[in-house]
Amino acid sequence: MSLFGLIEYSDATPEVRAVYDDIMATRKTDWVNNFWKALAHDPATLKRTWESIKQIMVPGALDPLTKELIYIAVSVTNQCGYCIASHTASAKAKGMSDAQFKELMAVIAMANETNRLVAGYQVEIDDRYKPPLP
Amino acid sequence: MSLFGLIEYSDATPEVRAVYDDIMATRKTDWVNNFWKALAHDPATLKRTWESIKQIMVPGALDPLTKELIYIAVSVTNQCGYCIASHTASAKAKGMSDAQFKELMAVIAMANETNRLVAGYQVEIDDRYKPPLP
Amino acid sequence: MSLFGLIEYSDATPEVRAVYDDIMATRKTDWVNNFWKALAHDPATLKRTWESIKQIMVPGALDPLTKELIYIAVSVTNQCGYCIASHTASAKAKGMSDAQFKELMAVIAMANETNRLVAGYQVEIDDRYKPPLP
Amino acid sequence: MSLFGLIEYSDATPEVRAVYDDIMATRKTDWVNNFWKALAHDPATLKRTWESIKQIMVPGALDPLTKELIYIAVSVTNQCGYCIASHTASAKAKGMSDAQFKELMAVIAMANETNRLVAGYQVEIDDRYKPPLP
Amino acid sequence: MSLFGLIEYSDATPEVRAVYDDIMATRKTDWVNNFWKALAHDPATLKRTWESIKQIMVPGALDPLTKELIYIAVSVTNQCGYCIASHTASAKAKGMSDAQFKELMAVIAMANETNRLVAGYQVEIDDRYKPPLP
Amino acid sequence: MSLFGLIEYSDATPEVRAVYDDIMATRKTDWVNNFWKALAHDPATLKRTWESIKQIMVPGALDPLTKELIYIAVSVTNQCGYCIASHTASAKAKGMSDAQFKELMAVIAMANETNRLVAGYQVEIDDRYKPPLP
Repeated sequence: MSLFGLIEYSDATPEVRAVYDDIMATRKTDWVNNFWKALAHDPATLKRTWESIKQIMVPGALDPLTKELIYIAVSVTNQCGYCIASHTASAKAKGMSDAQFKELMAVIAMANETNRLVAGYQVEIDDRYKPPLP
Repeated sequence: MSLFGLIEYSDATPEVRAVYDDIMATRKTDWVNNFWKALAHDPATLKRTWESIKQIMVPGALDPLTKELIYIAVSVTNQCGYCIASHTASAKAKGMSDAQFKELMAVIAMANETNRLVAGYQVEIDDRYKPPLP
Repeated sequence: MSLFGLIEYSDATPEVRAVYDDIMATRKTDWVNNFWKALAHDPATLKRTWESIKQIMVPGALDPLTKELIYIAVSVTNQCGYCIASHTASAKAKGMSDAQFKELMAVIAMANETNRLVAGYQVEIDDRYKPPLP
Repeated sequence: MSLFGLIEYSDATPEVRAVYDDIMATRKTDWVNNFWKALAHDPATLKRTWESIKQIMVPGALDPLTKELIYIAVSVTNQCGYCIASHTASAKAKGMSDAQFKELMAVIAMANETNRLVAGYQVEIDDRYKPPLP
Repeated sequence: MSLFGLIEYSDATPEVRAVYDDIMATRKTDWVNNFWKALAHDPATLKRTWESIKQIMVPGALDPLTKELIYIAVSVTNQCGYCIASHTASAKAKGMSDAQFKELMAVIAMANETNRLVAGYQVEIDDRYKPPLP
Repeated sequence: MSLFGLIEYSDATPEVRAVYDDIMATRKTDWVNNFWKALAHDPATLKRTWESIKQIMVPGALDPLTKELIYIAVSVTNQCGYCIASHTASAKAKGMSDAQFKELMAVIAMANETNRLVAGYQVEIDDRYKPPLP
């Protein structure tokens, strides 16, 4: 539902429609998901967030699928249900296989496990891991 | 330093040395980092953790560098200083370029940002994102 | 629903009713929200928590609305759905405008973003930021 | 130190210097803190992050000090040491009194406490707290 | 529901059935909860996770109920709804009284509160708390 | 060091000394750790926090050592270095054996691992785990 409700395309201002149009064009799709429709109540944040995402998620030194996997890793660690569902769907759309998803989950879980062992045992950083990197 | 101190190879039991040997052989290196030396005070956890890591971080549907990037994403989100330092070093050793690191950071930061927008606006999951996946 | 169910006023002991009465009197309202009805199964925690909240959320060097905004910032960062919904409603009741809510969300999101950049880049504290403050 | 070291003004490219100049002009100060000097290794992220911060932290429906308090609330909840130190200093510079800081801490701590009680008791959202808000 | 749906015993491969059988035998029960049925889509992770859990949750220096309480403390702090519900049920099955649950909640909440006070006040570790322990 | 420095007994007001005296008497010790000396800058929070801790950590349905273990579980999950160090020391003082510490760490790590698997696989709560408990 979202706090202020969702703004559908037909009810959107031209400023919001321009963002929706760019989302659909960039994604080559004909719909916009709830996150943007909720954020549309704050057009400045809608626009800034979309432009940042577009700049960041573009193919670069990392490919788009790898970026989605990283997005899922963060979202799972933060227990954000919406974000897990939406980025898992995006990753699938970008070609994530079931085998890749399963390995992703195993790595995320393992990292969360060892993060806590490190904290509990109060492990000090090895000299050769200290920045700056060579 | 770690809670119980670090167990060096020369002071380790045969059981612990076997794990250290396997770590060095698997990584093709001649040293063991503090995490394992701290964990060596609990040989059962040392062995179980290493064997899980070895099984999970092996090349599979995801390549080893991608797995390190995911490990970093979790560690940054959990603010685990040791884990960030050690896995950044590992990722470098597996070929991570500076450009890849920078994109990784941008995606992690962005995901943490939108995770909170979703929570604050109380965005409901779109029907087409609901499991099970098609 | 809550783990043990909710204790309604009519079913409450005098000890619990005294807290409910104080909640309603302090808030100038005629109802009590589920959080307190769930906590009422542990009257000692109910009383201690309510008295702490009452002491902390009172007008002081910070006004009550600012305190609600801070409460929301924590709850969003912790992904606590109930707390986000209830403190957003409280903030609205204390006069939060939609514009204030939107700026609040933008700040929370930004802070979560830069927190992770700091961690990932392993930024060291500037000397002039080190405590104690001048 | 930061992962790649810190880029001082004298070593910065014109693109990075332009951001440093804008930071100093906006803050009416003659220095730049480590966060930006670390981020300067990725000029695109430096620029995007600074422009977002500048847009978000400007006086609006919330005053700049309130925005700093919210930033601290997030940073404390995320246990980001650098962010706590730097934004506490910023809040002081924007007029935060010691009394305000202490109340801020009390609210943050309380919110973290009740967030967990809500989770543990599995409290369901009251109907009148459910979105959309009236 | 879970991402890939749940694998019931009747539809499971012999490899998965062997884990289900061991879960039921170890717990002296005739059913398997959703977590395992969801994880069964990745038999390697199913098996590794179950074997780790079985090794860790066994009576040892800590009794099984204490281990469940610790599990709940982590799950509440991570806001994992499923984990809170399932481990609260497990703790009840292992003899947790309502009084114990309530004290558990109070300690978890208090710890989350003081963790944040420590961070916000930037408290330095006392010399006598520094590792290694005597 | 802490944000405002540490208030030693000799510099403390009678109100603060009364809390310090109670801390030392309750713990049967002759010193006070940095947390309280930092918090002493806000006597109201010092007093409220100490009285809550004293009420909560007293022997009850759970013994004091179990409560310390729970405190550690939360502090490790929140990556609070000070809290991990101080409560590990407290647990040792209350009789925690090395074997208990090691099992504690294993459970904490495991719980953090499975919490994330649950989130990533989007596992739905089993009907029999849903509150209220029977």
